[in-house]
Amino acid sequence: MNAMDHSTKKLMNAPEDIIPEMIEGMLAAHPDMLKLEGESGRAVVAVDGPRDGKVGIVIGGGSGHEPAFAGYVGRGLADAAAVGNVFASPSPEQVKQAAMAADGGAGVVLLYGNYTGDVLNFDMAAEECAELGIEARSVQVIDDVASAPKERAHERRGIAGDFFVFKIAGAAADLGRSLDEVEDAAKRANAATLSMGVAVSACSMPQTLKPNFEIGPDEMEIGMGIHGEPGMRRAKIDTADNVTDELMSLILGEMELGEGSEVAVLVNGLGSTALMELYLINRRVAKILGEKGVKIHHTWVGEYCTSMEMAGASVTLLKLDDDLKLLLDHPCRTPALTVGTAPAPVEGAVRTKRNYDSASRADNIDRDTLATDGPVTPEVFRKMMYAAGAAIARDRDMLSELDGVIGDGDHGVTMDIGWTAVIKALDVAPGDDTISQTCTKMAKAFLDAVGASSGPLYAGAFNTGGKAVNDRLNLDAKAAAAWVEGMLKGILGRGGANPGDKTMIDAWMPAAEAAKAAAAGGADVLGVMQAATDGAREGAQATKDMESRRGRSKKLGARSVGHIDPGAASCHVMLEAMTEALRAAL
Amino acid sequence: MNAMDHSTKKLMNAPEDIIPEMIEGMLAAHPDMLKLEGESGRAVVAVDGPRDGKVGIVIGGGSGHEPAFAGYVGRGLADAAAVGNVFASPSPEQVKQAAMAADGGAGVVLLYGNYTGDVLNFDMAAEECAELGIEARSVQVIDDVASAPKERAHERRGIAGDFFVFKIAGAAADLGRSLDEVEDAAKRANAATLSMGVAVSACSMPQTLKPNFEIGPDEMEIGMGIHGEPGMRRAKIDTADNVTDELMSLILGEMELGEGSEVAVLVNGLGSTALMELYLINRRVAKILGEKGVKIHHTWVGEYCTSMEMAGASVTLLKLDDDLKLLLDHPCRTPALTVGTAPAPVEGAVRTKRNYDSASRADNIDRDTLATDGPVTPEVFRKMMYAAGAAIARDRDMLSELDGVIGDGDHGVTMDIGWTAVIKALDVAPGDDTISQTCTKMAKAFLDAVGASSGPLYAGAFNTGGKAVNDRLNLDAKAAAAWVEGMLKGILGRGGANPGDKTMIDAWMPAAEAAKAAAAGGADVLGVMQAATDGAREGAQATKDMESRRGRSKKLGARSVGHIDPGAASCHVMLEAMTEALRAAL
Repeated sequence: MNAMDHSTKKLMNAPEDIIPEMIEGMLAAHPDMLKLEGESGRAVVAVDGPRDGKVGIVIGGGSGHEPAFAGYVGRGLADAAAVGNVFASPSPEQVKQAAMAADGGAGVVLLYGNYTGDVLNFDMAAEECAELGIEARSVQVIDDVASAPKERAHERRGIAGDFFVFKIAGAAADLGRSLDEVEDAAKRANAATLSMGVAVSACSMPQTLKPNFEIGPDEMEIGMGIHGEPGMRRAKIDTADNVTDELMSLILGEMELGEGSEVAVLVNGLGSTALMELYLINRRVAKILGEKGVKIHHTWVGEYCTSMEMAGASVTLLKLDDDLKLLLDHPCRTPALTVGTAPAPVEGAVRTKRNYDSASRADNIDRDTLATDGPVTPEVFRKMMYAAGAAIARDRDMLSELDGVIGDGDHGVTMDIGWTAVIKALDVAPGDDTISQTCTKMAKAFLDAVGASSGPLYAGAFNTGGKAVNDRLNLDAKAAAAWVEGMLKGILGRGGANPGDKTMIDAWMPAAEAAKAAAAGGADVLGVMQAATDGAREGAQATKDMESRRGRSKKLGARSVGHIDPGAASCHVMLEAMTEALRAAL
Repeated sequence: MNAMDHSTKKLMNAPEDIIPEMIEGMLAAHPDMLKLEGESGRAVVAVDGPRDGKVGIVIGGGSGHEPAFAGYVGRGLADAAAVGNVFASPSPEQVKQAAMAADGGAGVVLLYGNYTGDVLNFDMAAEECAELGIEARSVQVIDDVASAPKERAHERRGIAGDFFVFKIAGAAADLGRSLDEVEDAAKRANAATLSMGVAVSACSMPQTLKPNFEIGPDEMEIGMGIHGEPGMRRAKIDTADNVTDELMSLILGEMELGEGSEVAVLVNGLGSTALMELYLINRRVAKILGEKGVKIHHTWVGEYCTSMEMAGASVTLLKLDDDLKLLLDHPCRTPALTVGTAPAPVEGAVRTKRNYDSASRADNIDRDTLATDGPVTPEVFRKMMYAAGAAIARDRDMLSELDGVIGDGDHGVTMDIGWTAVIKALDVAPGDDTISQTCTKMAKAFLDAVGASSGPLYAGAFNTGGKAVNDRLNLDAKAAAAWVEGMLKGILGRGGANPGDKTMIDAWMPAAEAAKAAAAGGADVLGVMQAATDGAREGAQATKDMESRRGRSKKLGARSVGHIDPGAASCHVMLEAMTEALRAAL
């Protein structure tokens, strides 16, 4: 049976409303613990959390992992969570608003799983926090032993181990420790936490209702990530004992445990694996630890970090020392986790309303100085952008399906979310905006709407593309080539990927080179854009033979060969649509 | 797509070990809260629960609803849970052991969902408790509005509303209220609790790994029960808002709520429905209640009463008064639910070890007085029983599939569990046991192994069948007919079903009548058994045209027509195997 043939079912309303509606439902369920702050509607804040002098704990990431992340907001744990779209990082603006809500004047610690998109977005948020005078430290959780070998542990993904790192940092902050100390506690917890998981079924994105990867009716994948990222090996499903033995052997191969060691255990369900099965796994975990003479300080069994309705489970061990034990046992009260006696509000706690100077960057333009030669007026440029957005909407499912083969199956959806926001911003923009101003607005709209790495990458692209032509009102052939090259540079500036890594760069680079060559060879503006489109098409096709070296598909290695990179494919889709719109407008 | 074509996957070991292994995993996870007591291995007891002078709270039911039921064992809630097999009631022995563990000398209250099998088994347990001097009161939870109209509310099933009834009763007992008062509190909670659910996918039994009912890839069933019992209507899946509106309208059509009323809300997931979706449902529930001016005292959203990996959800409302609110807010600490500050052990609490006189019923037989005519010696009889057990094992899946069409898909599995236990008991029984003694042992083995209604029903059958021939060593034709008739009488004595209700009685009654007629007409013992077999076959066939009026398939009404009743089918399977074994032995 081909899982891709089947649609799945969700009890939901319009998919584009699912996150705000989920947040509304959470707040309605837990009004004693949670509230919203900021205009983004995505900063979920602890009612009795943030207070003057306390280090703020900010967590976050994509949705679809409920109760992670907002379920860990509350007294003694996180002060605020930034809630992204499904499987997509929150935007820098959303993270910044969570940080502002958590800020007690003693700095904030940003805690999140180590994914390209999250790192890009949280790093931008940290920079923005610094501008506001909030010192922000970042700790990326890297507990998934399946995602990289020990020598490259810093490349590992964060999965259910988030639970322990958040808990430890939240306790350290609640106890009044300093920013350095809280950051240190989070890092020590991160270093002492290892997880390993298995998946036996896919989940589906609300927008597509298609399984995000294929898996046979009798198969499992050991080491699969919580967005469906490829694991270490695929095999016929085995007994709970054998599967647990394999998960534990990878953890114990790296975590030094012996007679007298103490650990905390988390047996986590990915979504549709029954609690009954999780208890079977825990039975074996306890047996293995018991045989080694390891003491289990505390065990949690349940759904603590899910992948929507994916079936599967993970085992996480936190190796304890006296301080980590003290922090783990420190009381907390959140929707997803209560430890000990629910802490009472701190006597005399004060939370000062802070004013942040949002540096309004002057963006005045003297239109009289701008070059007016070339047929691409701002109006034509906007038509090209509308066409690109429409093409992405049209090819959304195709792009997501491409991504499903080698990634987490959301590329089409993510790009569509970004472009929908871009179109909305263009709809209300003044008609006399220059191309450069249009690009700036597109960048902000895309960034605010999209988590995942494509948010910061395309925000960088639009910003840099716009800057490359900010001396012009209209574009001629050379300016059009400069704009395409600016798009590439913006992506290179944020991304860190290299040509040949099987990313969108492998389409944007040949596109920019072809555009430049065409312009140098005397082509007109349509010829330049057509050259860019052809370059992108050839570049995208060439990714088929490449082995992935970046992002979530990296783990696939040789298995990624034979499939076009979805980011390269969407580059071609956009450039082709822009070119056709230009042809029609001339 | 036909759901029956697909096997499902579970992380488990041998299916027959799944319950003891799950319990082991639970105890390993929660050693601070749970322990086992008694020899059955199925009585999960609160470490700091039972104490002298406190009314004992005993809950229980089939497994597969985790965290229900053992997850609600702990200080301030239940003192003990009797853990049945998957979707099958615990046996009277298992319930009795839980009651003994919970007994503090002030009586016990047995709380469980209103299902035929549970009522039969818990009632037998209550009788046995009375023999031990433990006063046991029973409250059957009946919260599912979909399962019967208001006029027949006593026929309703118990689903997620268990949560509130258990919580209220547990608090009343923890506060030191009397047996009458605790029973009263449980009854008031039961009367004030209404639930309504929707299912969108099936779950599978560990033994078969087949979905327990069929549902289309775009369908949902409103009002489906937590074992896959048919609901009120099937339709294309709708939005979360529309589905919630329908669930709420059924509850609010019966529960009188207005401005100033107060309720507690439980939005419960059946297994694989994501927390994200449950929050969408809660959003709508809160909105509907808000518009009516109803105050929400507290809300729980999560998996509190599941159907393994079934997808779907239910909404439960508990209408509060001052006393119910006080009891709901009373602290408790269990694996699945913590309320308020975890209660400290009661100062000076004592738990006396009690001695129960287990009345050892004399079972001595004077073999010299027994009639020895007839070719069916005890040895031949045992051969016939072994053959029946082997036939049930052979036809297990066929019987479960029959049951999947109109019931919860476990009949074959349940009968096989019972017969496996019977065979085990016969293997170790002394060779000189009489047929009557053999029957008594078979009854006990079957009852202890099997929950569900077939446990008490076949225990009654074997006991009464054995008594009908306890004046004989060997069976002749008339005695064989008397044995078959005794089987029927034993079932009728426990069951309460009538001929024509589409149950096992519709096979056993024509079998007994045909056997008697054959014996009266001078047939030999083989002829009598062959007549019984033929009668059972015809009776089972005739159930095809009947409309179900008993048990879980009752709700199907006219939809049950066209399918053979699995209980009638298994009667024929057993009688045919006995007859063939007899033919071979003669």
